[in-house]
Order: sequence, then structure tokens, then C-alpha cells
Amino acid sequence: MATPIIYGTEMSTYVRTARLAFEEKPAQYELVDVSVVRGEVKSPAHLARNPFGTVPTFEHDGFKFYETGAIIRYIDQVWPGTTLTPEDARDRARMNQIISIIDYYAYDAIIRRIVVHRLLPQLIGGADPAVIAAAIPRAKLCLAEFDRIKGGGKFLAGDQLSLADLYLAPVLFYLALTPEAPLLAEHARLAAWWEMMQQRSSYKKTQPRLS
Amino acid sequence: MATPIIYGTEMSTYVRTARLAFEEKPAQYELVDVSVVRGEVKSPAHLARNPFGTVPTFEHDGFKFYETGAIIRYIDQVWPGTTLTPEDARDRARMNQIISIIDYYAYDAIIRRIVVHRLLPQLIGGADPAVIAAAIPRAKLCLAEFDRIKGGGKFLAGDQLSLADLYLAPVLFYLALTPEAPLLAEHARLAAWWEMMQQRSSYKKTQPRLS
Repeated sequence: MATPIIYGTEMSTYVRTARLAFEEKPAQYELVDVSVVRGEVKSPAHLARNPFGTVPTFEHDGFKFYETGAIIRYIDQVWPGTTLTPEDARDRARMNQIISIIDYYAYDAIIRRIVVHRLLPQLIGGADPAVIAAAIPRAKLCLAEFDRIKGGGKFLAGDQLSLADLYLAPVLFYLALTPEAPLLAEHARLAAWWEMMQQRSSYKKTQPRLS
Repeated sequence: MATPIIYGTEMSTYVRTARLAFEEKPAQYELVDVSVVRGEVKSPAHLARNPFGTVPTFEHDGFKFYETGAIIRYIDQVWPGTTLTPEDARDRARMNQIISIIDYYAYDAIIRRIVVHRLLPQLIGGADPAVIAAAIPRAKLCLAEFDRIKGGGKFLAGDQLSLADLYLAPVLFYLALTPEAPLLAEHARLAAWWEMMQQRSSYKKTQPRLS
């Protein structure tokens, strides 16, 4: 098979999720940098890959598509190695539910409204404390739901690593760098999972350089 | 198996998507009405099912969860009958991509910003023509991408019906009732698919009563 290509920046949580899927298989891939900070996501070359101007986009053997939820499910189906989708229907529902909660609620509250305002205010012309304050209840609810859905399992969707773990860890990486980091400590099971995730070689290998 | 329960209103596109999955299997289910218009989605009883206050939520044999993307994948995995997930990896990627595009972009542009303002202004304290106008380019882009991703296949993700078809049809049902309906006609392949979908008995059986 041809080497698959992920287009995107290592800074993006969603790009990191796709990279984590390959690292956990494990399988080879190429990362082609498309910078958010330098506006390359809105360049004609990138809009041809994804007219919504987001990352990651993906290419494999001439097949091109975007949307992280589709990319990681494709990686899991096509590459041999570690299976990242639970066979058990309830665990699989937990995995898919966590992915949807991140796409629908948590990415917006935690990344767009807390992390970007705290760590990357230059991207949005300056931080707005009111935006951060308004996002905190929603961020807390997301974390509470992740903890509840996880329950007593070792990972977020049962006792095996799944795509849900790879979806959430890159988001918490950034939350942990903000003054809102203590929100995570309110949930013992989720906090223990998070400690464990940070020890994985896949996680260490994909850590963004913040410079 | 116990009869599964969908909590939600027949008016919701996401509730209809979950109902369509059962109708296409086919399999029995119960619909317990939780009204958006009467504010029941924010009642304590419903917030206990889903603290984000959205529909549908789902219950099966004591297992309760929410998020449509998770519910329909669970239905497809657990119930026998018609398979609604393509085996081919590229078709499956198309299906998952369309589901993500609807969750991330199309539901917001088409339902929240066009349909609600056009058809249900009482829900938001009155329609805002500027919101509708600003949403149209994004709605057009979504439709263009659905048409492109579909390509020459009979359905949105290949030649068999999939969860993607059940995700998009309820959204277009409402768009077709607005003055923006002609946007759909700009895409011949998508428009032909849409005509075909409206003939399915599952579609007719789940049509909301608009009164």
C-alpha cells in the first residue's frame, strides 16, 4: 500500500488524533504540514483538499477525504494491527458517543473558547475573559459526562484502548496547560485515565512543540 | 430483546434519523415524545437522560445513551436485518464523512439558521433575515460536497442504502419547505437521490406532522 498522508499541523488536536491512530496500530504515515497559525488552511491548495478549510485531510492510494471521525475509522478498518473499535455493542456505543460529544460540545467549549483564548489569543485578535467564563460550565459538563460514560473501565469505552481515547487525550493536553486544568481533577476516574494516557509512547511521540 | 425506546419528538431531524434506522432494518421500537417546542427537552426528567438537553436519547435493555451518531451505529450493529454500514472501506469513509459534515456544518447552517428562522421563528423570538442570508453560502457548500462525495453511486455512500442517507434525508425534508429549496436543484445527482429517498416507505412512515 502507498504511504498515507495526513495534511495538517501537529498543533491541531484533530490532527494528533489521526496520528495517534497510526502510532497505535502501528503503521507508517506522512505528515504534510498545513499551518493554522500562518493561515495555510485557507489557502487555495488546502481548500481544494477541504473546502471548509479545516485539518486534518487525508489521502491514501489516490482516495482523498476529510473529517477526523471518518479518517480514524478508515485507518482502523484498513490497517492491520491493534483494533481500535470495541466489538462489544455497548462499549462501541460509548466510544461513538464520546466522539460525538467532543465534536458537538467539548471541542467548542474547551478548545475554541478556553484554550484558544488562554494560549493562542493572537489567533483571534485577543482573549475575551467573558468567553472563557461562559465556556466553563459546558466544559465541566463534558468532563463529568466523559467520567460517567467511562465508568469503571480501564479506558473510556471498555478495557481496551479505542478511538475515543485518541479523540479526547489531545484535547486534555491543552486544557491541562490552562488555568482551568483543575477542572479535570474533580473526576478521579477520568484523571487516572489521563495520567495513564500520558505515559503511552504514541502520546509522547505526537506531542506538539509549543514554540 | 426488550423493545428499544427513542425519546424525542417526531419533528427533530435527528430523531427521524434514528427512527429511519429501525424502519429500514426493519425492527420494532417505541417513540416517547419529548417536545422541543414545549421545552420538555430542558425538563429535569429529560436532563437526567441527557444533560445537554437534546434529542434523541435512547434506551435498550437498561442501557441508556444519547448522540444520534452513536445511536444509529448501535442500532445497525445490534439488530438483524438490512445492514446500513458499507463493508467497502471507501464507501464507509464516505458515509462517516457525510455524517460528520452534517453534525459539524450542515445541521447548523440548514436547520438552525435557515429552517428554524423560516419555519419556526417562534422558537427563537422571531426570524432574522441576516442570519438566513449569512447561512446560505455554507448551506450551498454542504450541498455541493454531498453531491461530490456521492458521485455516481445510487446512494450517498455507494450503491446500498447507508446511515448517511438516513442522516441527510430528514434535513432536506425541511430545506425543501423553505424559499431556499431551489439550492438543492443545483445538484442533479443529489436532487435525483432526494427524489428517490422520498419514495421509501420508511421516509413516508416517519414524516413529521407539521401542525
